[in-house]
Amino acid sequence: MTSVSLIGLNTLPTITSGTDLVAEILDAADREAVAFQDGDILVVAQKIVSKAEGRLLPLSALAPSADAARLAEVTQKDARLVEAILSESVGTLRTRPGLMVVEHRLGHIMANAGIDRSNIGGDADMILLLPEDPDASAAALREGIAAATGSEIGVIVSDSFGRPWRMGTTGVAIGVAGPAMLLDRRGEADRDGRRLEVTEVAFADSVAAAGVLVMGEGAEGRPAVVVRGLDWTPTHQGARDGLRPAGQDLFR
Amino acid sequence: MTSVSLIGLNTLPTITSGTDLVAEILDAADREAVAFQDGDILVVAQKIVSKAEGRLLPLSALAPSADAARLAEVTQKDARLVEAILSESVGTLRTRPGLMVVEHRLGHIMANAGIDRSNIGGDADMILLLPEDPDASAAALREGIAAATGSEIGVIVSDSFGRPWRMGTTGVAIGVAGPAMLLDRRGEADRDGRRLEVTEVAFADSVAAAGVLVMGEGAEGRPAVVVRGLDWTPTHQGARDGLRPAGQDLFR
Repeated sequence: MTSVSLIGLNTLPTITSGTDLVAEILDAADREAVAFQDGDILVVAQKIVSKAEGRLLPLSALAPSADAARLAEVTQKDARLVEAILSESVGTLRTRPGLMVVEHRLGHIMANAGIDRSNIGGDADMILLLPEDPDASAAALREGIAAATGSEIGVIVSDSFGRPWRMGTTGVAIGVAGPAMLLDRRGEADRDGRRLEVTEVAFADSVAAAGVLVMGEGAEGRPAVVVRGLDWTPTHQGARDGLRPAGQDLFR
Repeated sequence: MTSVSLIGLNTLPTITSGTDLVAEILDAADREAVAFQDGDILVVAQKIVSKAEGRLLPLSALAPSADAARLAEVTQKDARLVEAILSESVGTLRTRPGLMVVEHRLGHIMANAGIDRSNIGGDADMILLLPEDPDASAAALREGIAAATGSEIGVIVSDSFGRPWRMGTTGVAIGVAGPAMLLDRRGEADRDGRRLEVTEVAFADSVAAAGVLVMGEGAEGRPAVVVRGLDWTPTHQGARDGLRPAGQDLFR
């Protein structure tokens, strides 16, 4: 029997711009009798990382370009929101009413550049952008928790992405510090000594999917989950190591 | 603190055609002191379900069509394997050397129709197809375990899929009995009373991703994982409920 635990923290307070995330996560863990251990992977929702980093923008501050105005008609979105999406993106793959699929400046192909309007304090005029550098956000959390507890943990900043062909969202990693984004298993053999067919495992994305499953959405939100019991070795990979190079991608 | 456990069974024997999977899973659980409980979700790797159901085919039995021979050149694959992929599919989306992305007859858009050559007993001439009806396979496991233990569990048949835009594979659900494939959260509110932006959660895919994370590949394979502690209500959904209708898909 091999056991892995997904431990969701329930008592994090509302996070606002400037909140010390390390301190709040350690306080919540203390209150809930969760002591960090070497090898834990902390999955943190992008939303609270962005909030703590003050990545809020008032829609009223945005002046839509002609491109944004045109796309706002196609997508039936607020032209100022489209302007924000375009500003966060390096390209647009598809549009339809309600949806823009873009290449975010961080390299992720995602809906609406990950810009969020829910759960940001009730002010409908504010939008929340992804962290400036989610790998750096993850690294800062990793170092902060190591400094306070002495525990060598990994940190993943998670988001919820939709997917082509399949309905609904799953968790993915947009920032990583410690664990591999991509686990290369080429050369390994299966139980019959045959070369493995599956040779690259999206490790951090899979951990994020597991974490987001426990987070839930909405009122019962648990935006930080400790994943305990996985076997991993620290790497220097970042989220970009999980992106398929455009030239090798059949679906752009 | 909210805790979910992923409990991998380590002592399943090699599964062959005709193996009684329910009996072997119950025996392994017994040996490893894992007692099934109401609300557990058992994630079982497609590979052992297919093997138990005898979904093996000798390559030598396949006569490639003209289409298969042509695609074999494009993809540099064995023409008999291409014939098997085409037989399992209702359409081909993309091809390149080493890869065919097809629409499987079950509706999944996937690489090489999920046909597997590894870990099937060391006989390189044999291929393994997906189960005929993975939802029915899941339902049979669910009923068998309920009958033997009295526990109302859910069952998910998992596979590992690659994805556009992102490297590596993650677990997805190709068969489900009990849990929702897709969780509809429209109408729910977030902590600020605002309508949720993420309204549909790929629940079974996320559970499969968590399970596959613990399974590992290859020599240490643990092809059955019990997920304990998730909050779910039985539904009548099947894997098809997780497929995006072709007309709503921007990436075909």
